[in-house]
Amino acid sequence: MTEALPSSDNSQQPSAERPKLRGRPRKEHAGNIDADILRAAIALFDEVGFDGTAMEAVAARAGISKRTLYMRYPDKKALIKAVITSIVGSARNPDPPAFMDMRSCLMFHIENFFMICNDPGMRVLMAMGDKSSQVMRELAPMGQEMTYELGVRHIVQTIVDTEGRTGMRVDAPDFYAASLLDLAMAHYQRLRALGTTVGIAPAQVASIRIVNLLLAGMQADCAADPNASS
Amino acid sequence: MTEALPSSDNSQQPSAERPKLRGRPRKEHAGNIDADILRAAIALFDEVGFDGTAMEAVAARAGISKRTLYMRYPDKKALIKAVITSIVGSARNPDPPAFMDMRSCLMFHIENFFMICNDPGMRVLMAMGDKSSQVMRELAPMGQEMTYELGVRHIVQTIVDTEGRTGMRVDAPDFYAASLLDLAMAHYQRLRALGTTVGIAPAQVASIRIVNLLLAGMQADCAADPNASS
Repeated sequence: MTEALPSSDNSQQPSAERPKLRGRPRKEHAGNIDADILRAAIALFDEVGFDGTAMEAVAARAGISKRTLYMRYPDKKALIKAVITSIVGSARNPDPPAFMDMRSCLMFHIENFFMICNDPGMRVLMAMGDKSSQVMRELAPMGQEMTYELGVRHIVQTIVDTEGRTGMRVDAPDFYAASLLDLAMAHYQRLRALGTTVGIAPAQVASIRIVNLLLAGMQADCAADPNASS
Repeated sequence: MTEALPSSDNSQQPSAERPKLRGRPRKEHAGNIDADILRAAIALFDEVGFDGTAMEAVAARAGISKRTLYMRYPDKKALIKAVITSIVGSARNPDPPAFMDMRSCLMFHIENFFMICNDPGMRVLMAMGDKSSQVMRELAPMGQEMTYELGVRHIVQTIVDTEGRTGMRVDAPDFYAASLLDLAMAHYQRLRALGTTVGIAPAQVASIRIVNLLLAGMQADCAADPNASS
């Protein structure tokens, strides 16, 4: 996770001590206020859901006036869009290490996935599957597409980097990146649905199996292609 | 699909012409009434959701009295449980063909999955991910576990049969069965979330890729095992 959004551990302490300012916020304050708003919104969405979260409650939690909140986000839909963008942006590790082989590359992404699954922001994104809310019916496709697109693109980038470094050639890296996320997500949701705490051990067993499967697929693609260098 | 639950095409015509019977239904009628109730419930759950479906509406749609309905299902939770059991039971093809090779076996299950995805019963099961409803919060784990368990077990059985017939040995067939369902489901949900009609063409491309991946994994497992016969 980047540090764009500090952990919600301190979301219990809204920035009530912020000095009351009048007029247009100065630039250095504007950034803090935005981060406070997004952190407050994520905490509330996580705790009481999208429909249960009132703009008033977001303003109170962020320690700002309703007017300041509405100046930035005219409605809850605009706020949710900003929240999605910030969660998706912060869920990517911007500087993955240089992997020495494809197995390390794939394993890194699965472990990263299981780690960020328990982040409040990710829980909020995953709850977007809940189509009972009108605003979610409108925004869920956008949120899922953004998460998926960015997640897949990030993994594809490191697969391509690892290819370049190791000489292994991968057909259709986007298929493998998507399959990695699909398999890890399904495993995670199954553990959650069954009420199992998603601990390190079951995730590790699954990670190794999934990585073995993806590597076997990549190697079979190489072998099937008469132009493959290996 | 088995014929346990006739297609909902004729659910528009509730069995209003059923002769009014008094007292305990005779056995041959009881079966019909149960099927009518389940068909009516599935149609309503699909159209207006679990929370939007009143027991009265189910009785009316099934062409029976509220009293008859309550005699069988004391509350909506009991009705939903029966619906889940019947959907899961009817979604399995009880007599899959004898597959000549593992590729045909896997391809059959993926194509079967994409086919039954558009069945109203399956749509109802998939909507169980919607945790906004109290009854769904309680029943979703059961529904997901049953669907998954039965789905995986059915695929595992045919993988094992195909192994016996073709001499290919598969380590951990349950992992491959689960991965087949996970990848197909994720692909299906992505197409739906993006508003794409789930047609035959995109499903076919995905099916071939998924089957190639699973076969490569199975073959790599065989090759890695020094006791493997092949």
